[in-house]
Amino acid sequence: MPFRLTILGCNSAVPANGRHPTAQILQVRKSLFLIDCGEGTQLRMSDFNIHGRERIGQIFISHLHGDHIFGLPGLLTSYSLNNRTNDLTIFSPPGLEEMINAVLKASGAHLSYAVNFVVVDTEKSTQIFEDKQVTVTTIPLKHGMPVTGYLFREKKQPDNIIAEKIAEYDIPFQKIKAIKAGENFVTAEGKTITHEELTEPAPEPRSYAFCTDTSYKPDIVPLIKNVDLLYHETTFTTEEGVHAEKYGHSTAAQAAEIAKAANVGKLICGHYSARYGDLSPIEKEAKSIFPNSKAADEGDVFEVEFRRTKC
Amino acid sequence: MPFRLTILGCNSAVPANGRHPTAQILQVRKSLFLIDCGEGTQLRMSDFNIHGRERIGQIFISHLHGDHIFGLPGLLTSYSLNNRTNDLTIFSPPGLEEMINAVLKASGAHLSYAVNFVVVDTEKSTQIFEDKQVTVTTIPLKHGMPVTGYLFREKKQPDNIIAEKIAEYDIPFQKIKAIKAGENFVTAEGKTITHEELTEPAPEPRSYAFCTDTSYKPDIVPLIKNVDLLYHETTFTTEEGVHAEKYGHSTAAQAAEIAKAANVGKLICGHYSARYGDLSPIEKEAKSIFPNSKAADEGDVFEVEFRRTKC
Repeated sequence: MPFRLTILGCNSAVPANGRHPTAQILQVRKSLFLIDCGEGTQLRMSDFNIHGRERIGQIFISHLHGDHIFGLPGLLTSYSLNNRTNDLTIFSPPGLEEMINAVLKASGAHLSYAVNFVVVDTEKSTQIFEDKQVTVTTIPLKHGMPVTGYLFREKKQPDNIIAEKIAEYDIPFQKIKAIKAGENFVTAEGKTITHEELTEPAPEPRSYAFCTDTSYKPDIVPLIKNVDLLYHETTFTTEEGVHAEKYGHSTAAQAAEIAKAANVGKLICGHYSARYGDLSPIEKEAKSIFPNSKAADEGDVFEVEFRRTKC
Repeated sequence: MPFRLTILGCNSAVPANGRHPTAQILQVRKSLFLIDCGEGTQLRMSDFNIHGRERIGQIFISHLHGDHIFGLPGLLTSYSLNNRTNDLTIFSPPGLEEMINAVLKASGAHLSYAVNFVVVDTEKSTQIFEDKQVTVTTIPLKHGMPVTGYLFREKKQPDNIIAEKIAEYDIPFQKIKAIKAGENFVTAEGKTITHEELTEPAPEPRSYAFCTDTSYKPDIVPLIKNVDLLYHETTFTTEEGVHAEKYGHSTAAQAAEIAKAANVGKLICGHYSARYGDLSPIEKEAKSIFPNSKAADEGDVFEVEFRRTKC
């Protein structure tokens, strides 16, 4: 069951060096989410073979700067032209609904499906979504306009029954659900076999934190502690840190400090200034502080494997 | 002095088969124009090495369907992030200014330059623009919402003086402008050399007509008579003509009939339905009626050479 992040766009405001504005696809088991939607997102989905885009039921928007939302009108109208019928929910800071409605009205578009706009609180961390697979919680960031990151955390699954034990104790199919939920099993001979012997714990839930755009904000560390994957913007290297300071962005070193303090599994760098055709200065700077760092490029896929607590 | 059309996007509403929504660059001598601006236009300009995009002073929008305008917000804000200062004029049917303003407001964008929105009359053909090189005239089309085509016609240039004659008659530099404008020249010996002997006519002005989106509308023929290049939408082949009828589009055969009746130099097909991965059925159908037809693909460049009336 995958936990898979695909980078569709990882440049900052002005597309450059063949890179596009921000957009990502996160698949958590059967759920498919879109995170930010810069211009060209629907085209990048085709470029990188994202299948089943109509299954995306939720879009999470960090903030309303154009490089994070200008792909929405095209995606929404293309869904409609392809006769989408399932609802779509878009989470964002305030103002998006008015903008999208103005665009749809001007372009004469009538969507074939319902769009629910949910305005998120960008000031405090709040769980805003859950389904069977995952919860999503906001991460307050700082960028000169209301902005939020998002923490995707897989839900803990029931313990797994050990296949060999089913045969060994001749456990009927109907009993398995209860055993997985915690019950013991009594054999035909009256012997009690404990839940612990029959099962192994489900893998640890996997997690992903998306943090862009933001200036250096160490108070997010407790919110993203121990996540498997952290995408944190690295618009500049420290050498250009004055621009990060001025425009509300972070350096690669700052992102790596956050990753280190939060003890994350892996840091993914992104949201690059147009000046970085070659990303190695970004990655090198991040790695010098947090070795398991990677400067993402478009089309990169990051798979999070299960970490089992007992095998 | 080039008269050069570059196809940036030539698919219809839903991007498919690696093709993008409508956008074109027309260079007429030193002037650079953008025609329509579907999602991804600024990215396609980079893909196809369109240099000097900041020199584009005018954008001509056919209509407000999303696949013709959703690239505008990104282009306009990128111009601003690159500190553009020269004015930009956008010609379009009504409603665009309100939409763009709503988008800019929501995304917190303040442009570094002035944008002049000019609403064009979509009911009658009107000259809406001229500079030293070119005039632009609207072509009323029909598509279920206000829509217009655009006719770009190079201005007639003064006659060219024949270089050898300057040496032969020892013509001073100061006299050349007057001779090109029509005057004769009198030599030091008092002999009159006629304007006709000294000059050759300037090349015939070149012209381009952009006609999309539209259903079959033969009354445009007189407006586009004898143009060098005609881009006319061919969303479907005749086999799928029922869809053309239903959605206000044209078949390849209908576009070719227009091209033939108007005696154009070359027909460029485009605005393809997503069903046409292979464009040969479109091109074949058009060629069967108007042999000098070409199914445009993205990145195609069409150069119009001078046709001299006297050499």
